[in-house]
Parts: sequence; C-alpha cells; structure tokens
Amino acid sequence: MSNTPSTTKALRASPGFRLARSTPSLWRVTFDNPPINLIDPVMIVALHDLLTEIEKDNRVAAVVFDSADPDFFLAHYDIAADQSPFDALPMAPTAFHHWANFLIGLSKSPAVTITALRGRARGAGSEFALATDIRFASRERAVLGQFEVGFAAVPGGGPSTRLPGIVGRGRAFEILVSGEDFDGERAERYGYVNRAVPDAEFAGFVNAFAERVSRFDLHALADIKRFVNAASLPADAALTAEMDAFAEAVDRPATPSIIGQALKQGFQQRSDVELNLGAYVGKVVHKAGQRLRRPARPDTDPNLRSACS
Amino acid sequence: MSNTPSTTKALRASPGFRLARSTPSLWRVTFDNPPINLIDPVMIVALHDLLTEIEKDNRVAAVVFDSADPDFFLAHYDIAADQSPFDALPMAPTAFHHWANFLIGLSKSPAVTITALRGRARGAGSEFALATDIRFASRERAVLGQFEVGFAAVPGGGPSTRLPGIVGRGRAFEILVSGEDFDGERAERYGYVNRAVPDAEFAGFVNAFAERVSRFDLHALADIKRFVNAASLPADAALTAEMDAFAEAVDRPATPSIIGQALKQGFQQRSDVELNLGAYVGKVVHKAGQRLRRPARPDTDPNLRSACS
Amino acid sequence: MSNTPSTTKALRASPGFRLARSTPSLWRVTFDNPPINLIDPVMIVALHDLLTEIEKDNRVAAVVFDSADPDFFLAHYDIAADQSPFDALPMAPTAFHHWANFLIGLSKSPAVTITALRGRARGAGSEFALATDIRFASRERAVLGQFEVGFAAVPGGGPSTRLPGIVGRGRAFEILVSGEDFDGERAERYGYVNRAVPDAEFAGFVNAFAERVSRFDLHALADIKRFVNAASLPADAALTAEMDAFAEAVDRPATPSIIGQALKQGFQQRSDVELNLGAYVGKVVHKAGQRLRRPARPDTDPNLRSACS
Repeated sequence: MSNTPSTTKALRASPGFRLARSTPSLWRVTFDNPPINLIDPVMIVALHDLLTEIEKDNRVAAVVFDSADPDFFLAHYDIAADQSPFDALPMAPTAFHHWANFLIGLSKSPAVTITALRGRARGAGSEFALATDIRFASRERAVLGQFEVGFAAVPGGGPSTRLPGIVGRGRAFEILVSGEDFDGERAERYGYVNRAVPDAEFAGFVNAFAERVSRFDLHALADIKRFVNAASLPADAALTAEMDAFAEAVDRPATPSIIGQALKQGFQQRSDVELNLGAYVGKVVHKAGQRLRRPARPDTDPNLRSACS
Repeated sequence: MSNTPSTTKALRASPGFRLARSTPSLWRVTFDNPPINLIDPVMIVALHDLLTEIEKDNRVAAVVFDSADPDFFLAHYDIAADQSPFDALPMAPTAFHHWANFLIGLSKSPAVTITALRGRARGAGSEFALATDIRFASRERAVLGQFEVGFAAVPGGGPSTRLPGIVGRGRAFEILVSGEDFDGERAERYGYVNRAVPDAEFAGFVNAFAERVSRFDLHALADIKRFVNAASLPADAALTAEMDAFAEAVDRPATPSIIGQALKQGFQQRSDVELNLGAYVGKVVHKAGQRLRRPARPDTDPNLRSACS
Repeated sequence: MSNTPSTTKALRASPGFRLARSTPSLWRVTFDNPPINLIDPVMIVALHDLLTEIEKDNRVAAVVFDSADPDFFLAHYDIAADQSPFDALPMAPTAFHHWANFLIGLSKSPAVTITALRGRARGAGSEFALATDIRFASRERAVLGQFEVGFAAVPGGGPSTRLPGIVGRGRAFEILVSGEDFDGERAERYGYVNRAVPDAEFAGFVNAFAERVSRFDLHALADIKRFVNAASLPADAALTAEMDAFAEAVDRPATPSIIGQALKQGFQQRSDVELNLGAYVGKVVHKAGQRLRRPARPDTDPNLRSACS
C-alpha cells in the first residue's frame, strides 16, 4: 500500500482527538480527524498513550468517546496512511496489530469506557465501539457496520470473536457476512448498542449517565469490570488471530484491487461512497467479480487452522 | 416404533427437498416433503450428501433453505418412518444420532447457511434452523418451538446447548420447558430469529441478502465463519450428549404412549394438531397424566451424569 | 454493622415467605416480609431449607416465586439484621456467603424456577431473580436494579458473572456501573426479564405458564435443565469470588458510611428512598463524595487478583 496517496502526515501535530478532563473522574475524548475521522497510525499511537495515562491516573472513573463530526464517529482504518508513526510502539507482527493491541488494552482499562455514537462507525470504528464497555447511539445519526467482507477481508479487530457475546451468534453472522450498515434502531434491537436515544436527547442522556458513573467508588467500578471481564472478555489470542487473518487477506490480490477501485470513487473522502458504504459494498464487489477459490481441504490450510488452536 | 405406520417409503425417489444452484455461489434448498415436511431418514441421508457436495464444491458461498409449503418449513422428525435408509450412513449409536451428526456438520459447513422461515419449524425443524448461521422469519407465517417436553422427552438435536448463546439463558429455559409455539414477532424479540420480515417483503428481502453475501470473497466468508464458530459453536460432545438423552427418553414408556395417542388425533398429518402443536402439547400431556418419578439422588443416576463430564 | 438497628428478630416465627403446594408438581413461594420484603438471615436459612425440600421431593416440577407486596418483590439484603440465624447453616467464609451458596443451589435445583416479578427487586433481590431459570415481569410494576455501586460496593450475589450470558456484555456493564432502576419495558428489551406482561394479565399469564410446565415429565424437565446449565451456568468459583469482593467492600470505610446516611433518610423502610432507590443512589453518593484511591498497580493487589485465577 506504499504507493497509494496518504491522507495523513506522519508528524501531524494533532493526534486526531482531543482529551478533556471534565472532572478528575470523568474524561472525554472527542475524535476530530477531518475529513471523516479515519483511524490512522498517528491516532493509534496517541490512543496507546491515552491508555497508559488512564492506567497511571488514580482518579479517572469513566471515559466518554464522542466525535466532533456528526456524520462520522470513526469512519474506519486509514488504509492509505504512512505507517512510520508505529515505530514509536513496541514491535508487532504487522502494523495492523498495533490496532488489535490497543483494542485488547482498551477492554482491560480500569476506567469504564463509554462510546457516544453519532455518525458512522464502520470497520475499525465499529471494532472500537465493541471494545468499549458501553455503547449508546443516536437513534437518527448512528450507523454501524463491518464492511470488510465487501473488500474481500475478514475484519481484523475482533468483531467475529466479540459479537456473539454481545448480539448472539445468529446476528453476529448477519452483521459480518453482509457487510451492511445497521442504523441506530436496529443496532439497539440487536444489542449492537445498549440503546438508541433520540438525537435531540442524546448528549444530555450520555452526559448524565457518565457523570453519574464517574461519581461512584473507583474500587467498586474496578471490581465490576474485573468480574464482567472474567465472565465475558474474549481471550487475547482469539483477538490477535483475527488480525493475523486480516493481514493475510490484505496481502492477497483481491483486497488491494478493490481498495484501489474504491479510492478512485471516493473511499476515504467525504463522499457518497463513505456516507453509504454498506450500499457501495453490495455493488462494487459484484461488478469486480473477484473470486478466490477456497482450498479444497480447509483443514490442511495452515491459514485456516491457526485460530482454533 | 417398528409397529407404527410409516409415512415415508425407504426407497422413495425424492429426498424431500430440491436443490437449485441459482448461481455457482448461491444454492437454494427447498424442502418439499408432503404432507407437512416431516424430517425422515431419506431426507437426512440426502442432507448428509448435500453437506459433502458443499464441502467438495469450491465456489458455493451461501445456501438458502426454504420450503415449498407456506404452512410448514420442517414440521419435526418423522417418528414413524422406516429407518433402513440410515444403513447408507456410517454407524451411529442410535438412528437418531444421524440427525445430530448432520446438524454438527451443518454448522461447520464452509458455506454461509441461511434459514428462510415461513411456516412451522418445531422440534427437529427448529433444531435445523438453530444449526444454520442466520435465521430470517416471515413475520406473519413463521412459527418456532421445541415441543418435545410435551412428549416427555428432552430435545435431542442441540437446542438446550445452542439456545443460551442465541437467545440468552432465561429465554432458552422458557422455550424448552414450555414446549410452546413462538411466532415471528416474539422470535425476533427473543433473538430466536435474526429478524421477522413482513411476509409480503420476505422473499425479496431474503433473496437480496443471500445474493449479496454470495458475491463476496469465499476466503473472507470462510474466515468469518471460522472465527464466529471458534467463539460460539458448542462442542460436538455437548450436542451428542443431548441426543443420547433423547434416545433414552423415547425408550421410556411415557413418550411412545403420548406419541401413540397423538398419532390417532392427527400428529404427523395436515391437521389441527400439527397446525397448533404448541396448544396441543399443553393439553394432551395433562390428560394423559403420565409422570415418572425422578431418581431421588440425581447425581447417582448415570443418565444424569453423562452430559456434564 | 452490629450497632445498627435490626429490622428482623433472630427467632421470628415467619421465614418471610409462605410456601403453598398448589399441586404436588407446582409449588408457590410468596415473599411476605414487611415492611418491604428485605432478604434477611431468617429468610435465607428458610430458603436453604426450601432447596432441601425440593431436592428431596420427587414430584415438584416447577416453583413460582411471587410477592404479597405489589411494590416490593424483594427489596434487597437487610444490611442491619441480626446474623445469628446463620448459625443453623454450615460454616461459610462470611455471613454474606450463605446468600451466595443459596443462589448457587437455586440454579442447580431440579425444579424449574420462575420469578413472577411485581414490584422492586434490587441488589440481592435482582440476584435472586437472575438465579432462577425464568423471569416474567409486570410491565407496569416491575423494577430491577443492582444499586450496590452507589453504596461503593461490587454486587456480591453473582450478577457480574451472570448478566453477560443473559443480557450481553454491554448491557451487563450498563446495569452494574449505573446502579440505575430498570422498568419492565426496558428489562424486557434488554433480556433482563424474559418478557414484560401487562399487569392486568400478569397473574393469569404466569399461572397458565407454570401450570403447563408443571404437568410435563419430570425426567424431561430435569434433562433440559441439566443441558442448559451445562451450556450456560457460571462456575461456582466465579460466583463466590464476587461475594468475597463484596465482603471486602463492606469492610472498607465508604460503604458503612453511605449505609449509615441512607438509613437516616429512609433506607430499609417503606420510604421514598426505597421506592426510588435508583434515583437516590445517583444523588447521595455525589453529596458524600467519598472516593477511594485505586491501587496504582491493580495486578499487585491481591483483592483484584483473586477472581481471575
């Protein structure tokens, strides 16, 4: 992907989000990475730092994540970005694994993490939401989806492992194999989000909830998180196995070809393609007609064996 | 059961369903086994063959299962059928285990499997739907249920093991211990099906969904299925233990007695009993009043010990 | 807590509930422990005895738990009660563990257990409902919640471990870290209860359901319960670890201080505080402003290590 145009600069001053310490116990992270809040290496390195700050702080009880852009919460991973910022992080199997490692750490953070979802959260954006503890959605403005299958790739940041415990096995399959967009109302019905709140009431609802939680005892909150995680947090190895498979997918010919075509049509820009990515995915792949033959005996393919061990 | 009248013929030409390869990547299986789409040994042997075909084919991405009968998707297991067709399959502990083995294989099939549910799917019919990846239901015409408890038997094809991960523990208990019918609307609310779609839009919705999925990359779909299964597919041993217990139940006196009475009243025929089996179950068992005494110390009963090990 | 006024008498004649054997196969337990159905040691000892009775009886198929008080199903644990009645039970790590042990036994009872929820079930009352197999709620009158976080404590009776398998991980977090009240309608939407039934139809619905189940074969019901438990019942050790953490929480200064203040304002009485405990919790902790500093390195704190091993 080194030849595709980059939409970020490695040494960009802004990490792509603003951190506000509303009170010592309530922090707010507002994503603001124009044009569409792509998740890029600069942001990911800064998110790793944020986790370290939360871990070191002994007063923060709750962290709310929201967006400065009412149309995009986090669009998805920036597939065209310069990856050199990752040099600041410990070595990982691939650049993509820095994202998986962040998500694994996010779910284990001692603070209660709350996604305040207005706008689109697809691909890695949806993975981010799924790795936080609680997801509230604007009924009218929220859109969630895992579009990766439409780019000939399994998602890498854990949704195949996490979704069955959040929406049940059948709805997990539907979300993942369709690559479709899910609006706030259906996301609530499926449990993809905790609840969909009318947009006019959304900010007030989220703020009241987060402020309430942030006043509670830190030890009690940490205990709750410890027990809920013990009961329901997937193993790290299951999550990294997904990223291994994603990295293999983008090394096959189909994905770069689809990405190349999509970039020409507005992918990664404030465009109809990004506004309606679920619909786009249902069309472009059909036209491209790229189909790989599956190995005849999956059990002899090391790629297919690795995750279940 | 060798003395009860059989509704199937061992060497019947039709397997009880039609297979249409709509495209190389999208197959459609339409159940058509009059009078009420009972699941019988001929059909089960053919379904084993279907799994082998899917496995050998390297292009099929999605398989839709629907019914030619708008009142019955799959009524339930044909308790009166000749079992000699099973001779074509590898040995199994009991004839019933051929069904359990098929369901285990169905969930592991590399293709995405979609139940398009119009009409009734009770007992083994519901077990079939639960073993596919995705369940869509006609809001007005779908009926699901596990009526076996009303026939003094635990269900055998896995629902006690699968339902908690699909509808949650409390609703799994309700479905299983009541033996009641669940309509499309409630099935959606419980997550028993992914969604209930108005019947007028149902075929169009399912077709568009399946066609969309069938155009996606086979490797990506197989990876998704692999990871969702790793996170949420029950162990084979848990599923076969249920069938062991079902086989024991039908060897006790209560079940054959209830079956005998039900057959006289229209069970296995296109009758009020079959149309309203949930209601029937709530009445006939009451009248029969057959009650077995539970072993006073369950932990010394080898039947009760086997599954938890 | 030995200096706080007790609302129960150690040798009170009533166990706090009435047992009616409606039929040999259907028992009904009606909580009646004025003023607000607190769960106290006398009741807990009697509930242990009830489990033994169910275990010894070989005819009871279903047990319904309801309340004589339309405003309170089970308010919560009686934090001020004399604990000497527990001397009748086998030794336990703390007095609180007699409650955890009862809940563990309740879920393993061979009978199908049904909560008929009218009025409030918070804290240990909610834990009781979660430990039964099936929860039906009056749409207008039911209120559920785990308010303990507002008293600076993790809940002790298992909800952090049980809720992810009942409502999903995200909604489990919301319930536990907010300490809020959940009404019947939202409880149904989240799966916290199986269904919310209009209050006018509630008694009729529950009775018909329980009578239906109670007529079914005991062996079949026990098999169903065995398999659903094998698939979804949390390990005993996970549940007792929660109670260990709760016992530690009430030994820290914050909880007794909050309890003391609450008792003065109507806690444990038929008062606005108890009627609207979710709202109270959101205010009193804020005013008290009691905050403990979390250990800087949680992994070196033995309290935080114990549960995950």
